[in-house]
Formats: sequence, C-alpha cells, structure tokens
Amino acid sequence: MFDGTIGELIEQLGRLPGVGPKSAQRIAFFVLQNPNYDPRDLADVLASIRERVRFCDTCGMLATDTECDICQDVRRDETVLCVVEEAKDVWAIERTREYRGRYHVLGGALSPIDGIGPDQLRIRELMARLGNSAITEVIIATDPNLEGEATASYLSRMLEQPGLTVSRLASGLPVGGDLEYADEVTLGRAFAGRRSV
Amino acid sequence: MFDGTIGELIEQLGRLPGVGPKSAQRIAFFVLQNPNYDPRDLADVLASIRERVRFCDTCGMLATDTECDICQDVRRDETVLCVVEEAKDVWAIERTREYRGRYHVLGGALSPIDGIGPDQLRIRELMARLGNSAITEVIIATDPNLEGEATASYLSRMLEQPGLTVSRLASGLPVGGDLEYADEVTLGRAFAGRRSV
Repeated sequence: MFDGTIGELIEQLGRLPGVGPKSAQRIAFFVLQNPNYDPRDLADVLASIRERVRFCDTCGMLATDTECDICQDVRRDETVLCVVEEAKDVWAIERTREYRGRYHVLGGALSPIDGIGPDQLRIRELMARLGNSAITEVIIATDPNLEGEATASYLSRMLEQPGLTVSRLASGLPVGGDLEYADEVTLGRAFAGRRSV
Repeated sequence: MFDGTIGELIEQLGRLPGVGPKSAQRIAFFVLQNPNYDPRDLADVLASIRERVRFCDTCGMLATDTECDICQDVRRDETVLCVVEEAKDVWAIERTREYRGRYHVLGGALSPIDGIGPDQLRIRELMARLGNSAITEVIIATDPNLEGEATASYLSRMLEQPGLTVSRLASGLPVGGDLEYADEVTLGRAFAGRRSV
C-alpha cells in the first residue's frame, strides 16, 4: 500500500505511543508535504537525544547537564522535597505551577513481583540528601496505585525523624489511575490538600 | 520546565499534527527511556524523507521511484481510474480494500479564491492518460465539500466522451452513524440518492 520509504516512515511513526495507524498516515503526509515543516529538525534532535540526555546527579531527573534545571534553580524552595516515581511525574507536577520546591525521582515504585525492591530505587540517595540539607518537609507523590501506595508507606516509615514533616498527596486523584494523566486542576488540588502521615 | 534538548524534543514533537502538549511529553518520555526503542530509526527516515520521495510520473501519487507501487502493479485493473485530490485520499481508499483499479491524484481541488484553477491541478495529465489507454470508467472521488463538488462538476464536463463512464462517489449517511445527528445537506443527499431494496 505504501511505497518503500513512505511505508517505513509510517511504520516508524506508528511505533510512538498514542499514534495509531491513521494518525501515523496523517503525520506522514504532513511530514512529506507541509511546506512550512522541515522534518530534519526533528531528525536532528532524535538522532542525538539519547547521548545528550543523562540523569541529574542530585535528584535523578532527566537532565542535559550534571544537574537538572530545577536543581540548579536557586529560586526553588530548598526546604520542601517532592518524591516521585518517574521524570514524567515531575513534568506533570510542574504543569500545575502549584509547587516551587525540589524533587527526588525514585526511578520507579516498589514491586516485588518485578524484582524491584528498595535497592533498585534511588532511596539511598534520598536518605543521603536528607542527611545534610535544609529539607524540613517531604511530600510523597508516588502514583495512587498498589505499587505507589506500597512505596509511600515504606518511605514514610524510613523518613520518620525529628523535625521532618512527611506528607502524601491528598486523595482526589482517582485510585488505580496514573499520576501522569491527571489533569492540572485535580493534581493542583491534591497538592494543596496534602496531609501529614 | 524542560532541560535544553529535552524541551527541544517536546517542542518538535508538538509540531506534528494531532500531537498536543501532553502527548508530546508522553512520546518524549518514551523516546528517552524505552529500552526497546531506538529513536535513531525514526531520525534516519526523517532526515532523508523529503529527498527520497517524489511524485509518480503517471498518477501524481507520492512515490520513491519514477512510478508508484500502484502504477507498477500489473494486477491492478487498468480499465478503471479513480480521481482524488490528495495522496492521503489514495491511502484512505486503499484501506477499504474495495477498489482494485488505478488512481489519478489532482494535487488539490478547484478553489478560485486561493488562486487554484484547472492549470494548477493535474488535469492536463489526466486528459492525456485517457487519450491513449484502456480506461473505460472514471470514478471522481473528490471531497464532498464546496471545492470538491466544483472540481467534480468541472471534471465530469471535461470527461464527456463516447465509451467513457464517469461516476461520482455516493453521498449519504455514514455507516454506523445516527440519522438524528446527520446534517441537513447529508440527509438531503441520502434522500436524493435513495435506492430500492
């Protein structure tokens, strides 16, 4: 149905998440024919993106330097730390514009069935950060599902220490859902209504 | 919110049609972190696609050779020709698997307000194809809108010649649709084009 390279383009576009066969054809047509679009711009970024992106030494967020932009930003509140599972959760929280503190990216959630225990997550790094810093509050923002809740309870026990407030995002997020897909208002409300654990 | 190259990737992905800000972030995360995905495959195709794709000398379809796969396919019926506006219309018709004839891509529809007259479309090429070929039926499959209808009437006048059947795709209610929500024009067409059962 599609000539050589065109078929390859449509197939490659169809591998992206959320892009079905029809969307892939629509995007391919745009890429091929839109006079205001140069596909080489996207090609350039894609060609080198994996080499150019690393993890922030401090928080574990995706970064293009040894530290990510958020960790480098001196205007962010150093006393509050928000613990999330994945880099995409940081993006979701940043979209709410409700939170001005720092982040810590665990790199996943506890899931014994998948062989992910505390040592597979960046929990040791989290404890080290708390040891010598101005952090007075930790907000646990793991996903509101089974693994996320398990991780939250584990962390809340680990973080029990004098002078440190530990909170969990307020329920209001649909249970069984995925933090990444929460709308900005709901996620913002969840931040505002966080309660100590 | 996004570090250098990551922000650039998200911005570039967001320029694709049908990809909103959230989808762009989701795709970016996949591109950055999915272990089974190599973004260089898509990068390679995008980098050279415009140079590698041309228009089929015969039908005007997007092709990677002087003739497209459909024109080269000897199993296709040479006696029927389907005239469409754009390459993506060929893809849409091919998806139905109902049609086994040939195509002719006009490259648009008549639209005096946009300065598109018969000379801007591949109508001369269409007439030349009809002159020396086995074609006995032409199906006009332009879009069912103002420009498409105007193009269809123009073509049907141009194509009046002995031994050549000219038809237009049926207008009517979409299958699986709801009569209650059909617009007046579509419903009117469905009445006018009613067939005995």
